Amino acid sequence: MSATIHRLSRNSAPSLEPMMSLVAEDLNSVNAVILARMQSRIPLIPELAGHLIAGGGKRMRPMLTLACARLLDYAGTRHHRLAAAVEFIHTATLLHDDVVDGSAMRRGKRTANMIWGNNASVLVGDFLFSRSFELMVEDGSLKVLKILANASAVIAEGEVNQLTAQRRIETDEDQYLDIIGAKTAALFAAACRIAAVVAERPEAEELALDAYGRNLGIAFQLVDDAIDYVSDGETMGKDTGDDFRDGKITLPVILAYARGNEADRKFWKETMSGLHGDNADLAHAQSLLAATGAIDDTLARARHYGQRAIDAIGMFGNARAKAALTEAVEFAIARAY
Amino acid sequence: MSATIHRLSRNSAPSLEPMMSLVAEDLNSVNAVILARMQSRIPLIPELAGHLIAGGGKRMRPMLTLACARLLDYAGTRHHRLAAAVEFIHTATLLHDDVVDGSAMRRGKRTANMIWGNNASVLVGDFLFSRSFELMVEDGSLKVLKILANASAVIAEGEVNQLTAQRRIETDEDQYLDIIGAKTAALFAAACRIAAVVAERPEAEELALDAYGRNLGIAFQLVDDAIDYVSDGETMGKDTGDDFRDGKITLPVILAYARGNEADRKFWKETMSGLHGDNADLAHAQSLLAATGAIDDTLARARHYGQRAIDAIGMFGNARAKAALTEAVEFAIARAY
Repeated sequence: MSATIHRLSRNSAPSLEPMMSLVAEDLNSVNAVILARMQSRIPLIPELAGHLIAGGGKRMRPMLTLACARLLDYAGTRHHRLAAAVEFIHTATLLHDDVVDGSAMRRGKRTANMIWGNNASVLVGDFLFSRSFELMVEDGSLKVLKILANASAVIAEGEVNQLTAQRRIETDEDQYLDIIGAKTAALFAAACRIAAVVAERPEAEELALDAYGRNLGIAFQLVDDAIDYVSDGETMGKDTGDDFRDGKITLPVILAYARGNEADRKFWKETMSGLHGDNADLAHAQSLLAATGAIDDTLARARHYGQRAIDAIGMFGNARAKAALTEAVEFAIARAY
Repeated sequence: MSATIHRLSRNSAPSLEPMMSLVAEDLNSVNAVILARMQSRIPLIPELAGHLIAGGGKRMRPMLTLACARLLDYAGTRHHRLAAAVEFIHTATLLHDDVVDGSAMRRGKRTANMIWGNNASVLVGDFLFSRSFELMVEDGSLKVLKILANASAVIAEGEVNQLTAQRRIETDEDQYLDIIGAKTAALFAAACRIAAVVAERPEAEELALDAYGRNLGIAFQLVDDAIDYVSDGETMGKDTGDDFRDGKITLPVILAYARGNEADRKFWKETMSGLHGDNADLAHAQSLLAATGAIDDTLARARHYGQRAIDAIGMFGNARAKAALTEAVEFAIARAY
């Protein structure tokens, strides 16, 4: 962990534990909403949705909504339903992502598309997405609806952008940040921001929470990108090198490509366009990433965004919630170490 | 055309012409909204969406919103944006449907999934779906949002239901009506109903328009189901026998199965489970459908729902709009003759 992150004094590695205990009771209520509202008279819907929703997810985004509401000392319960809506949007995008990427594993389990087929995953994703809007409509805040409808459109746009960028080695760091800002950080930002809306706080506080979520989301994704090249399957619940085999241009590759010599670039071009992709190629890719410092610097970028997330909530007073949200950032980054 | 439909005096076959001329100016405004709001800085999005949106669709659902608003003498413009939202929901479901069905042709053109791949179709569908909610949020009516969010969830549920029923010859008429009530009629109903909401009419009028749209939608789908076994490719813009080859249980099959002898049922069971499906099988299926009167009676059912649609709007006073909406029903049914 870099010294640029202000660490709280503690003996153990950073964890989500403080955030989890901060919102434990609220999260039970959210889980009850999730369970109740993923039901349908068509049995395949709760079966398929439940596989993913019950299956080992951290509930990171709903927890952020809940923790941010605590940060603002919000005493109501409107955010339970909205946190469930956020989790439904997230689940819908995961279902569609796994179809698009042809993924076989997620969170250490077989993906829904592998078990029930792409068709069922597409349609149940659509259902959860619609259901999330029903939950928002029940809450009745047009402001929340606007934030989450916009985030959803931005996510889909980011996914299409990534699809277009796939296997295009010319993707640069700005374009990449643009993609993950949309496909990952937009929902983190919205999940945090809506807490300020239900708590009826001024726009400056909405924007502060939005910035916290957005920067945390970017940090989170960058760490994921790094882990994909260094972890064993245990850590991620997916296999090392998935991004590599899919020709997914992530920041480690962008940095290694920019810093490499002619032979290295030729290698990256060929692998990203699908010419290589076996274990020997992956090992060579990993050695180039190490030699160029691409993994270390991806993580340095992640720490930068993590620090910005922490600074964004500096203005708030609730010390326990602030500490929990700070440690969540540290946890996101520490996963790589 | 059966005598059970009250026909307006006219010399020509029923057409959408009266509805089209009734709403021509409004439809231009809707098309402008559609064009403006399917844009994105990611070029693939308007390219793919435009292929389907510009590609020969009748704009049936937005026209219904507009014609129903005329029926109520609504003088505002809020329904333009909402009619565009309805068309976006419809387009999103078509994109996902074509992926799920593996369709190669729609409206006489190659499908988006064939040109740009399933992945792009899934993601651009998600984008249009999100964008439709953004349009509704801009309008600001929670009542409209509720109606369309609910319709979207019902559509997705209906699609999953159909996926489950696929190749299950035991599907009965009630279950089938349930499926098409969800996957087709729900959006027709919602498209009509929201006109009463923007015109701020009492609930009875909302329900009347809902009933008109719902019954028209069922009639429309039943006629489509019949046409799939009798048309040439020209009429439908898709090939005869598509449903047959996909093992899609539709009302003609349900009736022919119920009325057939043991050998016929064995044939239907085998074809629907994918054991047959060549041209000789299709010809045999068509002969069984003819022998059991299954096509004629599917169309008789369609006329029944068509009549209910027409009766549902009997209470309204605007004669021109009522005539146009009546002829739209007659057109939906006359397509089969």
